[in-house]
Amino acid sequence: MMLGPGRDDAPGEAPVVIVEEGSVGIVATRSVALPGGLPLDGGARLRPITVAYETYGELNAAADNAILVEHALTASAHVAGRHRPDDRAPGWWDVMVGRGRAFDTAEHFVVCSNLLGSCYGTTGPSSIDRRTGRPYGLGFPRITVGDMVRVQHVLVQRLGIRRLRAVVGGSMGGMQAIEWALRYPEWVDSLILVATAARATPQSIAIHKVGIEAILGDPHFRGGDYYGEEPPAHGLAIARMLGHVTYLSDGWLWKKFGRRRAPADPAGLRTLFEIESYLEHQGRKFVERFDANSYLYLLRAIDLYDAAEGYGSLADSFRRMRCRKAVVASFSSDWLYPTYQSRELVDALRANAVDVASHEIQSEYGHDSFLLEHEKLTPLFRELLAS
Amino acid sequence: MMLGPGRDDAPGEAPVVIVEEGSVGIVATRSVALPGGLPLDGGARLRPITVAYETYGELNAAADNAILVEHALTASAHVAGRHRPDDRAPGWWDVMVGRGRAFDTAEHFVVCSNLLGSCYGTTGPSSIDRRTGRPYGLGFPRITVGDMVRVQHVLVQRLGIRRLRAVVGGSMGGMQAIEWALRYPEWVDSLILVATAARATPQSIAIHKVGIEAILGDPHFRGGDYYGEEPPAHGLAIARMLGHVTYLSDGWLWKKFGRRRAPADPAGLRTLFEIESYLEHQGRKFVERFDANSYLYLLRAIDLYDAAEGYGSLADSFRRMRCRKAVVASFSSDWLYPTYQSRELVDALRANAVDVASHEIQSEYGHDSFLLEHEKLTPLFRELLAS
Repeated sequence: MMLGPGRDDAPGEAPVVIVEEGSVGIVATRSVALPGGLPLDGGARLRPITVAYETYGELNAAADNAILVEHALTASAHVAGRHRPDDRAPGWWDVMVGRGRAFDTAEHFVVCSNLLGSCYGTTGPSSIDRRTGRPYGLGFPRITVGDMVRVQHVLVQRLGIRRLRAVVGGSMGGMQAIEWALRYPEWVDSLILVATAARATPQSIAIHKVGIEAILGDPHFRGGDYYGEEPPAHGLAIARMLGHVTYLSDGWLWKKFGRRRAPADPAGLRTLFEIESYLEHQGRKFVERFDANSYLYLLRAIDLYDAAEGYGSLADSFRRMRCRKAVVASFSSDWLYPTYQSRELVDALRANAVDVASHEIQSEYGHDSFLLEHEKLTPLFRELLAS
Repeated sequence: MMLGPGRDDAPGEAPVVIVEEGSVGIVATRSVALPGGLPLDGGARLRPITVAYETYGELNAAADNAILVEHALTASAHVAGRHRPDDRAPGWWDVMVGRGRAFDTAEHFVVCSNLLGSCYGTTGPSSIDRRTGRPYGLGFPRITVGDMVRVQHVLVQRLGIRRLRAVVGGSMGGMQAIEWALRYPEWVDSLILVATAARATPQSIAIHKVGIEAILGDPHFRGGDYYGEEPPAHGLAIARMLGHVTYLSDGWLWKKFGRRRAPADPAGLRTLFEIESYLEHQGRKFVERFDANSYLYLLRAIDLYDAAEGYGSLADSFRRMRCRKAVVASFSSDWLYPTYQSRELVDALRANAVDVASHEIQSEYGHDSFLLEHEKLTPLFRELLAS
């Protein structure tokens, strides 16, 4: 199953900011096949593996002008531009990639791949298991953030890249960026980490748990073997509604919805407030574009990620890094990846002599700020890339 | 259906603090019947109505030493003491009620009733609708916080009380206390409002929505007509798990659980961390003791409550009040009823010349602090009652 993002909803976590000038224009998602697959952290070998990716700009002769963008939980390789001229929205971080933008395609070769376990062209639970001729479902091996990065490491070599000028990620994308600098230290010149963390908080694990229980409890889930049948839409919608609440802030919900009542359902209990209609809409859109098994695997990859695992401290773990510079940005209203987690990253980077620009950006949008506060992020990114 | 709280889990939101000295001892829940019922804010007349309540201490000759305690979402009239000598835990706020305690039964007559719509002896959706001979289910009329208070107003008159020395409530209990002072201003001498608000935030409405969808989506829910059959246990457990996350704080979850792994389920996706086992346990215990329809009705009563409704501002609305004094306490780590909501109450009370003692208590327990921080709350309550 290959699910495409809906026309009116890019696969990011929030509405896409649209600016036309400097756009990369019409782009296409391509893919590379790794017929032999790769070994996974869990011990299994997954094969074959297909990796969907997009690129913007040109690789220079020295092959050292690449920027690798890591996407978050439910996004895709489609960062920038449009697939068709009539696409209503461009890619999920379009405003950051193009001529004159933060990641300037006049200078840089920007790459993003759909992460392992997702459902936008890279191998995941909805892919066909060639041993059975049917989708993997829960037979898909457990994957880690390290596995996602291992696949990307092969991809960037296939693309002829020799070194990454920067690895950039917001939210779960930041975990992948951190892991890049730990696994392939010689490859990573700088890190841009936005609204992210070295590990998920117990609170976010607890919130993921609620979504996971909603999916597993949906009678259509059938142990993950629902392909070709009705999918566990209600459970997945519940998980997404809850995720959405964690992407926003209380203050922003007051501004956008307040306590305004929904028009419909005057006698019923189901939908009394506008915020509820909004969440229902978000849930409905999401189940049209995302696979429930992928959602489970990716949530668990986040939960299990710990950049300090196997080391006495985060600073000890980061001793492996060889990157020179980093930007670490958090947002004042983000309670999913709170600022104290960015501070831990900053401290561990600085303990290893990385030159870090650290910013807590005042923003009301909650965790979604990383997709919306492009005007505040752009100068920070440009400064790092200019140095 | 009358559900009793389990022996090892009082119906409060958190573990009960147990202190033996000064205990009220063995107590019993009693009830009064209102055969003619009462009119509801929604226009219907609900009849009959039964009200379950407990009292501690003695009403004085002037009938003016009563303190009315309002319980929160899923608690009961059983505030203090034990029903049986071998009960493992006493009532949900036992530590506050007894000789020498904050609500000193040597001086005061303390009353608590199970709220309308609940399932601990007061009429609710699991009660028999005498028109059909079967439980109301979703045929139960929609109820408001005002309706809960109207029932209590009849109860206190039946008990011979002439004036309430204080109305006390934490969380949703605080909404009832506010409503008492608005509906029956001559009755209320003082208010004690803890971790509460004049209205639910859109964020808490959104979180309730997720729990409501989980209950409604459970295949055993059957439109609320599940009595005598298997109840919607998984949906209700999901709602409770999520509720539980909102009662705690990120900091406290780090301390209590951190990222410790659960022992079981090494290959599966379901239960990877200790915090998840804990939430599963909380969910299981809850479905044994609470009715899903009651949960829906009570969540919606919270969502719809707005102490300013029909008035230009909260201060305008509070002009009806006649209470002299109030304590308003919030907790630094409570993100469900954040301090800014208590400040709104303080401002509106002071605008109406109520003498308010306002406190933000430093606490790591999140919203549950109102049940756990008895040592910090007791002197505040005693000071108000002594004056």
